[in-house]
Amino acid sequence: MAYKLYYWPGLPGRGEFVRLALEYAGADYEDHGGFGEDRDIATPSFAPPYLRDGDLVIGQAALILHHLGPKLGLAPQDEAERLWLHQIQLTIMDFVNEVHDTHHPVGSGLYYEDQKPEALRRAEHFRTERIPKFLGWFETVVRRNPHGQDHMVGDAVTYADLSLFHIFAGLDYAFPKAMARRIGDYPHIAAIAKAVGQMPELSGYLASDRRQAFNESGIFRRYPELDDREDV
Amino acid sequence: MAYKLYYWPGLPGRGEFVRLALEYAGADYEDHGGFGEDRDIATPSFAPPYLRDGDLVIGQAALILHHLGPKLGLAPQDEAERLWLHQIQLTIMDFVNEVHDTHHPVGSGLYYEDQKPEALRRAEHFRTERIPKFLGWFETVVRRNPHGQDHMVGDAVTYADLSLFHIFAGLDYAFPKAMARRIGDYPHIAAIAKAVGQMPELSGYLASDRRQAFNESGIFRRYPELDDREDV
Repeated sequence: MAYKLYYWPGLPGRGEFVRLALEYAGADYEDHGGFGEDRDIATPSFAPPYLRDGDLVIGQAALILHHLGPKLGLAPQDEAERLWLHQIQLTIMDFVNEVHDTHHPVGSGLYYEDQKPEALRRAEHFRTERIPKFLGWFETVVRRNPHGQDHMVGDAVTYADLSLFHIFAGLDYAFPKAMARRIGDYPHIAAIAKAVGQMPELSGYLASDRRQAFNESGIFRRYPELDDREDV
Repeated sequence: MAYKLYYWPGLPGRGEFVRLALEYAGADYEDHGGFGEDRDIATPSFAPPYLRDGDLVIGQAALILHHLGPKLGLAPQDEAERLWLHQIQLTIMDFVNEVHDTHHPVGSGLYYEDQKPEALRRAEHFRTERIPKFLGWFETVVRRNPHGQDHMVGDAVTYADLSLFHIFAGLDYAFPKAMARRIGDYPHIAAIAKAVGQMPELSGYLASDRRQAFNESGIFRRYPELDDREDV
């Protein structure tokens, strides 16, 4: 039975982390832009994305991937390594929240235009403090991987590698200047992101219109003023 | 062998969600205010809290609880219910992040005093939009629990019930006016939080100095100006 993925239509968003895993594995899934049928169940997700897998309905992107990883061959066999992989993905999602808050520092219920002064300050802090802190940690994770430096966890592709690819694509879209200045500090994760983008398992998807473009309704938004200043 | 919990000293913070589970279960654990010995391992956490359990070192409060839950008798037997419990806890931690950002909307590296105008706006949005959205969801979770309305998941205490107690204690400390206005809307979760606070398994802990007081270095902070306005 096909998986059913529910997410907002018109933007890659947090759904994309799940979509990349399903696409990489060639899984049978339906991509629903929107929600509805599952609103009254006993396990309603706080927010999309959520996934229906038979009788299970699971929300929280990192948890969906923790559930799917072993089924899609995108998680290690070892239980301790699966936990570690899940922890990395949770931290990736924390980073994604902070990306979102660069343009919505006051609240997600308000327009960007109504919180622009706050966004300018938050984005500067994000570029100078948070990007280095998170990317530095991801780089450390790879450097310390006892199985080698080609993957975040273990010696094969996991959903965290796929997520790293999307993080880099999003940062290059939203913060091209900041990324151009900093990319050299993170050679291992930059190499993983690049390698994922060239994998034959993803080429069909990435060339298709199922791979949605970044835009200013999404999490990664290109507002030049948020990437503009010369940071130290 | 005793569990070792690492967290910032001097505040309950995100460590408290783990501490409550360990204390409720009467587990043997050492509470380390600070870090150090585990800095160079292959699985370094991005941020505290983290837990050492034998050879495992696990970060992310919700993941620590997912790991500990079954061992401490604070998670259901059923695998689908354990996933659901984990999903709830992840959403609780999302809420905690938003609580933190009411006083740090620009960045955690800056003082509150340096982001006060932004905090006033963010806190208002938090009180009027986010508290109802999150507490409303928690209330729905309990109302739809097929095992009855005495617990968030299943028919026995889980770590999510304990976390709910701490959330209410924190909100009462940080936003007493907002909570006084809204508490009546959430009778089921208010009852669970109250019941947890009276459980004999926790009475020793709650009366001890191991239960740290809320203060203005923590996540839940009492800044009257962030709770001051008359919200609609």
